[in-house]
Formats: sequence, structure tokens, C-alpha cells
Amino acid sequence: MEIYHGYTGFVAFKLKEANAEPGDVIRVENPNGESFTGVLMPKQLLYSDKPVIVLKLSNGYNIGVKIDPNTRVLLVSKKRELPRTIGSQPLPKKPFVSILATGGTIASKVDYVTGAVTPLIDPHELLEWAPELGDVGFLNVREVMKKFSEDITPSDWEKLSLEVYREITSGAEGVVVAHGTDMMSYSAAALAFSIIGKPVPIVFVGSQRSSDRPSSDSFFNLYSAVLTAFKASFAESVIVMHGDSSDSYAVVLRGVKARKMHTSRRDAFQPVNDKPIAIVYPYSREIRIVGRVFEKRDPGREASLRNKFDDKVAIVKAYPGLQEEIINFLVDKKFSGIVIEGSGLGHVPNSLIDSLKRAVENEIPVVITSQCLFGRVNLNVYSTGRRLLEAGVIPASDMLPETAYVKLSWILGSVTKNLSEVRELMLTNIAGEINERHTLELFPRWSHE
Amino acid sequence: MEIYHGYTGFVAFKLKEANAEPGDVIRVENPNGESFTGVLMPKQLLYSDKPVIVLKLSNGYNIGVKIDPNTRVLLVSKKRELPRTIGSQPLPKKPFVSILATGGTIASKVDYVTGAVTPLIDPHELLEWAPELGDVGFLNVREVMKKFSEDITPSDWEKLSLEVYREITSGAEGVVVAHGTDMMSYSAAALAFSIIGKPVPIVFVGSQRSSDRPSSDSFFNLYSAVLTAFKASFAESVIVMHGDSSDSYAVVLRGVKARKMHTSRRDAFQPVNDKPIAIVYPYSREIRIVGRVFEKRDPGREASLRNKFDDKVAIVKAYPGLQEEIINFLVDKKFSGIVIEGSGLGHVPNSLIDSLKRAVENEIPVVITSQCLFGRVNLNVYSTGRRLLEAGVIPASDMLPETAYVKLSWILGSVTKNLSEVRELMLTNIAGEINERHTLELFPRWSHE
Repeated sequence: MEIYHGYTGFVAFKLKEANAEPGDVIRVENPNGESFTGVLMPKQLLYSDKPVIVLKLSNGYNIGVKIDPNTRVLLVSKKRELPRTIGSQPLPKKPFVSILATGGTIASKVDYVTGAVTPLIDPHELLEWAPELGDVGFLNVREVMKKFSEDITPSDWEKLSLEVYREITSGAEGVVVAHGTDMMSYSAAALAFSIIGKPVPIVFVGSQRSSDRPSSDSFFNLYSAVLTAFKASFAESVIVMHGDSSDSYAVVLRGVKARKMHTSRRDAFQPVNDKPIAIVYPYSREIRIVGRVFEKRDPGREASLRNKFDDKVAIVKAYPGLQEEIINFLVDKKFSGIVIEGSGLGHVPNSLIDSLKRAVENEIPVVITSQCLFGRVNLNVYSTGRRLLEAGVIPASDMLPETAYVKLSWILGSVTKNLSEVRELMLTNIAGEINERHTLELFPRWSHE
Repeated sequence: MEIYHGYTGFVAFKLKEANAEPGDVIRVENPNGESFTGVLMPKQLLYSDKPVIVLKLSNGYNIGVKIDPNTRVLLVSKKRELPRTIGSQPLPKKPFVSILATGGTIASKVDYVTGAVTPLIDPHELLEWAPELGDVGFLNVREVMKKFSEDITPSDWEKLSLEVYREITSGAEGVVVAHGTDMMSYSAAALAFSIIGKPVPIVFVGSQRSSDRPSSDSFFNLYSAVLTAFKASFAESVIVMHGDSSDSYAVVLRGVKARKMHTSRRDAFQPVNDKPIAIVYPYSREIRIVGRVFEKRDPGREASLRNKFDDKVAIVKAYPGLQEEIINFLVDKKFSGIVIEGSGLGHVPNSLIDSLKRAVENEIPVVITSQCLFGRVNLNVYSTGRRLLEAGVIPASDMLPETAYVKLSWILGSVTKNLSEVRELMLTNIAGEINERHTLELFPRWSHE
């Protein structure tokens, strides 16, 4: 069976006859009078038994158009050349945004052999299907690593921080980091801490559907991210992703307060104990501030880089029967820090308090967060909490467990290993990771409400 | 300073003068014409500098009434005697519901010395302030343990299962378990599995504010739980708690699909990947079914007890840089099972797959859930997932990590340690823990929506 960019049979024949290649604008005219014009996308073999052509429409949305033997396929225009530089070329004088590709779905495509999604080979393919991006401004695209985000490690954060820092000091209006969504909030939190005094925004963006799939959110998200990098009035490490399940707007979430809350929805990223900083309407190129701004854009600000992360920090979730030997193991193995996902207000089984006390006595900081995610740790209400405080743990206020993990790893790697200094920094609001003021609407509304 | 049930100064004097004790109905008449009638509650010393009397109003809500030296305090009626039996007394012939107290905030009060909340000494105090409960039907109250829920272990689930089973086989219309909220969803999941073929509902109930505090939710929740135990048409292990931040209704959540999602809100318990089974309107004594019912009430059904839980199961959260040595430690220490909170669709760092494979080769089941919480694990989409499947892990569909932990512990303790049988049971919907059908509204709506 011959395969033409994922297409087979008479569909492949019609595309070849029209001299249409992925990236070209084509028109598909069905015998029933339907007509669709859009950019031809390659197709997954998974769907190859269906006679369908995948088109990206001008609103950025991918659709699958059913084809029959009488359908006409016409070439409208060949692929646009993109206005962009490559990393090794001299940087332009005019305002530019840098896009750093790291891998992940937004930079991935379907493996036509296995049907699985794998990282992209050429980072420029990121823009291949979206020449409109160039209309926003000058783009500088580079690949800095090629990893699914589940494989990103604290040492990758060091590298990524350095690369972003370079773009910032080269004068970028903002830096977009194309990143896998799985661990994106951890990386966005890492950059929130590792680059101090950001003059411009660092914008993480990902995709829940690979860019060659119908219903991909790659273009919508990337366009919103580039807009944010160019135009936003704040200078924080943020995540820009779909805000609802349709294509009406994207949300800008503070990396330290954001979480992937759904395995597959396009609006999976949501704020916890925070509002979005802003809403982005990509079609009208509007960015509306709706939440708190922790740091404003200030191109004159001198950024500094502190990008070491300690890779011997562990997250331990408290569950009924959590075995004391797990804590003891971490202490024996000289782990650098422990983040506990406590229950409720931040509790752990009382049977564990002695082992946590031993950790503290060994100068290992123990940070307490809550597996509830929403709300704030408070160890003063119940006797268990008071015993924990006496043992010397550090309550992490309303920080996400993931953010507390990244922050502790950063403090230990880049700032200090002194226990009382670690405590003081954990309790200091460095990048907006603590929200002192909660309001009722920060808790989402549920299916019965 | 003399302390009278937490009250001091002229307030204590007025209460003593009126011969009013906690549990009595009193009327407070302020010089400005305000008048409040309600049950006198004891008061926390934390608030003792304010001249306030705490009253439980007839709607079950506690308020603090400001008192001045000219306020009149009148005794309306002495404490009602409760229509209830004690565990050791012979069981009644008429329909009854059993309330088993385990500890936790709903059965706790403020320690007047430290100001912290500690477990209650006498379980009957549960009903002390709520004689109205007796109006619903005959209540059989027993204390089966006295623990904050963070200290509940898998072996406590064995004991609790046995006690609940005894009540069921004694003919209870339903069993209410008063439980701390921190780990309540784990216990509710445990009972969902350990008592097979429930004829009547098992209703877990807790409180986010201790019953002697203003704004306590103890009474509202307990009343809703007792109603549910008596009247509900389903026979599952459920959680009944406040449904919104006001006092309008309670939600009935399937224990295996519920989660404490906020550290302090009264509506902290919410369904994940599920709707509430029902809404309870306590004032009109109405129970409205709004979700799926997995098992209907059938008083003739013969329940069986399988209440052993394996206490060597661990939950491990995947985070960037998750150290392989942690997995290796669990395998070396011959843990019985491992539940992974993977990222996104259920991924872990590829660097860990070999150690997970080794676990499986050592007949240790490795179950994959998602730290996203919402959505479903799918290991067929990305290459990482496919590699995990090849390593022999068990994907847990849309189960919560907490539920997967309890279920695996129960299967290993009560049913089988054979790896392929464990796999089959984990993939079987035993107690409604898998929801095959997701709809859009199962994902909550967020602050920007």
C-alpha cells in the first residue's frame, strides 16, 4: 500500500494529481455541493481506512473532510515561506520573540508506523502549518531539547533556564517555550524561580492534540502564546493554553499556580488558589488582565540567572498506612528535602511524626502541602498539626505540592542548604506562588451547582 | 479567671444565673430589641475575649450572639433526653439506623487548654446538641474507635468493616459512620469493597468545623446522613457532606469517586469523574437522585464480608526527576503493590520503566493512575505509555489514585495475590469505581468561566 503523507487509496491519488503537499492551501469540492478551503495536513495512519482529508481552516481549527471518488481536489496556493530566522543566523534589529522548542505534543507528530505520537524531528515544523504566526512579529525559532515532558529532569530546567536567559539578554520581547503538557507546570514553576527579575514574559505553551490531528489545539495555543510574549504587560513565567473546550479564548496562568487538571481536555490547565492572570482572545489580538499581576513588564530590568536545582528532593503523599520506612529510607539515603502531600489542613499519620522529626534533625527540610490542592495548609487547628510544627516542618501556605517541590529543589540548589534560611525562603513569596487572599470563586463550581 | 463551659466574665455570670447549661434551649434578648432562641453551645476559649453566646438555631446553624451587660438571658427549656440505645442494650424491633463514631472533627471539640481540636470522649455527645435527629427514627449509637482520620490505617478498615457488617446483619436500615474528613474518602472506598452485596447504604459523614464552634456543619451533615441511611434507594458506601457553601443541601457522593478538594471549606468534598448520586434537602427530608446508582437498596440481600487489606501497598507520585532508587527500594523491601500517580494520560519518566518492569517481574502489581485526577488513563496514545504497557503495568481507567490504592490493598488482602487475577480485578468495575461514560459537565467550571 502506497502512503502519501499518511493518505492512501484514491484520496492519495487525488492529492498527488492536484500536486498538493502538506502546508499547501487546497479546496475540496464534494458532489453534494460542500466546499472546504484550508491548509492540507498530513494524516494519521490510525484513521487511514476512512477516506478523509484533514484541513486546517483559517480559524486555526483542523477538520476531517469526507471524500468520495467524485470529489474534486484543487490546489489554491503553495505553502508560504515563513518570515523567521534560525538560531545560528544573526539576530534581527526589529522586535522579536524567541520560540524555544523542547518536544512534547505541540512539537510532535504521529508515527506512521506504530500509530503512536512521537517527538518532532525538525523544530521548524512547529510553524510549518501556521505561517500566520509570522504576522504578529518577527520570530526566532530554536530547538533546545527534544523530550516528552515526562522525561524532563531538574537538570533540564538548568539548561532551559540558561537558554531562556540568553534569549532575554539578547533582547527578545518575550520567550515562548513549546513544551509537553504532562510536566509543563513543573517547568513553568522552575523558570519562575530560576530567572530573577524577568524584564519580559516567559510563556510556556503546549498542545493536548498533536498538530497533525484533526481538532489540534497547537495553532490556537501557539498563536495565543506568541501574542502574550509580544504584548503582555506582565513579566512572569506563565502557561498559555485553551481556556474552555471551544476555541474562543486562551488563559494565561501563573506557572507556580497552575496545574494540569485533566488527562485529555484541551482546557486541562487551570489555576489552583488563583485566578488566571489574563484572558487572551487570539482573533482580536486582545489580552485582558483578570487576575493579579506579580511582576510587570520592564524591558530595562536586569535579569539574573540562578538555575541550579537539587535533584534529591522527594514528594511523598500521605495515605492511610503510609509506611514509616519510606521516610526513613529518604533520610538514610541523605535526600536533600522532602515535600509531603498531607491530608486536609496538612496532616500526616501521627505514627510518622518521629521519622519526620528525625529528618529535620538531620537538616533535611520537610515541607507540608495538602493533597486537597485547594485551600491553605494550617497546622494550628488540630493537635496533629501542632505536633508537626513542634517537629520542625515547614507549612507551605497555599502552594501546590508541585510548586513546593520545584521551589525547594531550587532553594537547595541555587540559594542555601541552611535549614533556617530554607524555612524563611519557603515562607517568602518569591514569584507569586503564595496567594494571601482567597475568595470564594477560587474554588471551582461542580456538576451539581 | 472562672470558665463556665468556655464562657467567662459577665457572660458566664448571666448563663449561670439563668441555670442554662449547654444543650438547653435559651432565649437571648438584647437591649436593641434583637432576640435569639436556640440551643446553648459551649464556647472556645480562643474567642473568649469577645462577649458572645453561641447558639444553635432551629435550622441547625450555629451563630454567635453579641452580649452586653444589659442583655437578658432566659432559660426556655432544659436539654431533651434522646431516644436512642447504647451499644450494649438489646436492639429495638422498630426500624433503626446505627451511628458508629470513629473520631474526627464531627466527634471532636475544642480543647479549652490548648485551643486545639481534640477527639471527643463520649460518643453520645455527637447527638447531644441535636435531639432532632431522633425524630427521623430510632438511632443506635456506638463508638468503635477514637481516631483522627489521618491516623486510620488499613487494619482499622478491617475493624470498621466488621463493625458495619454487624450492624447490617443486625437489621439496620443503614449505617452512618462519623469519621474525620481528612482520610474519609479512603475509608469510604475501603467499605465499598470490603462489604459485598450491601443491602442498605453505608453513609460516611464528617464535619469541617467542630460541633461546638459557630458555623459548625456537624448537625446539618449528620442529619442529612441519617436521612440518607434511613431513606435512600441505593445501597452503596457513600459520603454525605455539605453541597455548597451555604446550608441549602448536602450531596451524596460515591465513596470511590469522591475526594476532599479543599482544606477548609464546608463543601470540600466533591465528585471526580462522576456526578453526585443524590442531593439531600434536610429541611424537607427529600433525597433527589441526580447521578448513576450502582447498587439499589435491597434489605433481603445477603451481604458478605471480605475485610482484609494489605498494608504494604505504596502510592508513588511521578514528578520530574523521580528517583529510580525509590521504586527499587519498594521492590527490594518486597512491597505488595505500587500505585503510580502518573502525569497526563498516565506517564512516568522513561528512565523509570526498567525499575517498574522489575517490579512486575517480581510479581508486584504496578497500577497507573493520573495526578490530573480528572479524565482517564490511556497508555495507547504516546510511546511512553506503550512502553509502560509492555512493561506490564495496569492502567486504572478513570479511578482516583486514592481509590486505586484502596482497591489494590483490598484485592491483595482479601482476594488474590496472583498477578493476572489482580490485573483482571483492577480492570473490573466492582463498586462503581470506574465510570465508563464521561460527559463535559464532569469537569468543574473555573473562575474565568
